[in-house]
Amino acid sequence: MKKLKRSARLVELTQFLLARPHSLIPLTTFAERYGAAKSSISEDLAIIKEVFEEEGMGELQTLAGAAGGVKYIPRVSNERALGIINDLCVKLEEPGRILPGGYLYMSDLLGKPHLVNEIGDIFATIFGGQNIDVVMTVETKGIPIAYATGAKLNLPVVLVRRDHQVTEGSAVSINYVSGSNKSLHTMTLSRRAMKEKSRVLIVDDFMKAGGTVRGMIDLLAEFDAEVAGVGVLLDSGTVDSEERLFEDYVSLVTLETVDPKSRAIGVKPGNYFEK
Amino acid sequence: MKKLKRSARLVELTQFLLARPHSLIPLTTFAERYGAAKSSISEDLAIIKEVFEEEGMGELQTLAGAAGGVKYIPRVSNERALGIINDLCVKLEEPGRILPGGYLYMSDLLGKPHLVNEIGDIFATIFGGQNIDVVMTVETKGIPIAYATGAKLNLPVVLVRRDHQVTEGSAVSINYVSGSNKSLHTMTLSRRAMKEKSRVLIVDDFMKAGGTVRGMIDLLAEFDAEVAGVGVLLDSGTVDSEERLFEDYVSLVTLETVDPKSRAIGVKPGNYFEK
Repeated sequence: MKKLKRSARLVELTQFLLARPHSLIPLTTFAERYGAAKSSISEDLAIIKEVFEEEGMGELQTLAGAAGGVKYIPRVSNERALGIINDLCVKLEEPGRILPGGYLYMSDLLGKPHLVNEIGDIFATIFGGQNIDVVMTVETKGIPIAYATGAKLNLPVVLVRRDHQVTEGSAVSINYVSGSNKSLHTMTLSRRAMKEKSRVLIVDDFMKAGGTVRGMIDLLAEFDAEVAGVGVLLDSGTVDSEERLFEDYVSLVTLETVDPKSRAIGVKPGNYFEK
Repeated sequence: MKKLKRSARLVELTQFLLARPHSLIPLTTFAERYGAAKSSISEDLAIIKEVFEEEGMGELQTLAGAAGGVKYIPRVSNERALGIINDLCVKLEEPGRILPGGYLYMSDLLGKPHLVNEIGDIFATIFGGQNIDVVMTVETKGIPIAYATGAKLNLPVVLVRRDHQVTEGSAVSINYVSGSNKSLHTMTLSRRAMKEKSRVLIVDDFMKAGGTVRGMIDLLAEFDAEVAGVGVLLDSGTVDSEERLFEDYVSLVTLETVDPKSRAIGVKPGNYFEK
């Protein structure tokens, strides 16, 4: 790459770091890439660090020494998270979302890549400090959230399927009981999908009693893997605590009431801010 | 926001533009945001434009006049696209991917958010100039590619389901015949998912004879919508042309041979570079 001036270097460095979250990049990489002295690169990084922190975009960690370098840790400030979650609450309360049976239509919101990426940013913020090897979800609606989170944590995503697919090779299947209506379901995961002893972040779009999450945890046991965290976009606040099959999770929004008669939906920010 | 120096402004502007592809942003937005003169912002943008172009990251379009502003159009250079696709070819030819029945395991590759985002960048490059309202895919494995593409084109994503879900409200279902083994399947799309007359980019992970894509196009007709383009990660080069149900598509990689006996897989870059 040709030698760049500081101004151009700042642009290049910014995009390079944003595209590689949670990756340690040695200063020599930049020094060689831009034909600049390490001291100049350090000055550039100090400018970027200040802007990222001021903007509530996250942290630039610098590690000194031979094995050192710089690492971009995306992090959403509480203020920005609250803004995103409040917007989501307003949209979720639109009366037109109520479906027969008291279900909530939210595919339009989950269909907005920009919003889904913001949700991923929030999960990456709360789970970014933990020791995690892989992000897991079960098809279908949690998939974009899992990828958005995985992208920001620089982690692979593993998809649990409802049925065994020929394109997944040999697989492990389990049965699980849905907590809300006690019906029996199957989920299956390719044997190749995960190494033993993996530490797994489970992500999903919605959790009622937690039967699906419980099922994923049972599936993890078959892989000798363990759960490192659970994040759901929306949880239901109407479940009795004795009915709840899983307690230790992070939710961004809590659904309090859905009344098909009056077409009223009540939501509030989830337990994210209590964590 | 507090008044920023040029160096800090360049960092901020770069991240702001990267986060908002295909969005027209008036110069006054930046001028107010950074407490700077429009002429200074224009100079900043010229620097960013040069770096983006030099790096093969895309274009910064500036529109003059009262309704003017700047728009970041992500675009992957042919050189970078070839690098990504060649890497993909090498990985796809690993003999361990062959599954019983001659299927190819690729969930590990589709599970890498960084790679999936690069695939989205390539689709956004080839379809970015077209008039598209929405990106569509059918569950499951095409979903991350659809979101990566939608994010870079600043477009919503619509998911076609295999079964009608209670969380989707009233839906339109069709039957379609898979081109390769002539079996009958169903696909369904929520009535709320798409406006009439929408122009739709169809994206998927794999296409053999094209039965699934054909099905999605039939489904579009029910919504009075039309197909604006079709992009698949992998297509099969072993399908006879009279067997093929759909011809006009872009593929990144073409699967030429899968021989379970010798465990040999042959792939080559798809028709992307011919488009």
